[in-house]
Amino acid sequence: MKGILKGLLLLSMFVSVPGWAQFAKPEDAVEYRQSAFTLIGNHFKRIKVQLDAGKPDLDAIRASATLLQALKALPFEAFIPGTTDVGDTAAKPEIWTEQERFKKLAGEMEDRIGKLDAAARAGDVGAIRTAWGDAGKSCKNCHDDYRKKH
Amino acid sequence: MKGILKGLLLLSMFVSVPGWAQFAKPEDAVEYRQSAFTLIGNHFKRIKVQLDAGKPDLDAIRASATLLQALKALPFEAFIPGTTDVGDTAAKPEIWTEQERFKKLAGEMEDRIGKLDAAARAGDVGAIRTAWGDAGKSCKNCHDDYRKKH
Repeated sequence: MKGILKGLLLLSMFVSVPGWAQFAKPEDAVEYRQSAFTLIGNHFKRIKVQLDAGKPDLDAIRASATLLQALKALPFEAFIPGTTDVGDTAAKPEIWTEQERFKKLAGEMEDRIGKLDAAARAGDVGAIRTAWGDAGKSCKNCHDDYRKKH
Repeated sequence: MKGILKGLLLLSMFVSVPGWAQFAKPEDAVEYRQSAFTLIGNHFKRIKVQLDAGKPDLDAIRASATLLQALKALPFEAFIPGTTDVGDTAAKPEIWTEQERFKKLAGEMEDRIGKLDAAARAGDVGAIRTAWGDAGKSCKNCHDDYRKKH
């Protein structure tokens, strides 16, 4: 019996890395990805506030873009099977039946945030504006299909 | 009238930067700091999991420490007067009556996460363990006095 339990434990560790290993329970995965999205959304909006200002503060834009770059992959660590119907998640079950497309959209978002960060570092406001718009479309593409409407 | 409104708008912008400017409403500030703490707590624990492992994964520790370094100042942007009794905050009102001490503890936490990140980059497991313990004490010092017990 002890051997079986140990075997199951080892198996679960193997299956779950790098997913579950980081979260004590499914609700923690939901909270983690929502937290990452909250910070991403906030800093994404901060860049827009600067772009809409008469004279954009490039240092503020760069700080937010650097942070977005550090955060962009985090939510996707936490989209783990079994975390659709827990907590107050707005994640649709299609995320797991359409994994290929979901991951493609996630990859696009990550690429476009990378471009936004590069544009911010280069400091051309026009290029930042374009990159911001492209990244925003990427957010929307995924939300349209994979986030429940509140 | 238009002049007064413009004056008030300018005044509010002046008073609120860099605090309120980033948040549409007090609840957003609460959500923002809680989100930052959620990610900080998660990656802080991930480092401990590695330190407790037979053979710590130094790359994983470094990745988490780098992220902690990027996140460490974020919560403190969002401790803004008027955000004690909103949402599901656990922030005690003493945060605003004991600002000097609260900021001192926040600064200590930031310093110690900086040292944890430096130790992680240097790659000495013993030094990482010490730095992790010091940073953890810093978290606890602040939680003991300024976070409501759930």
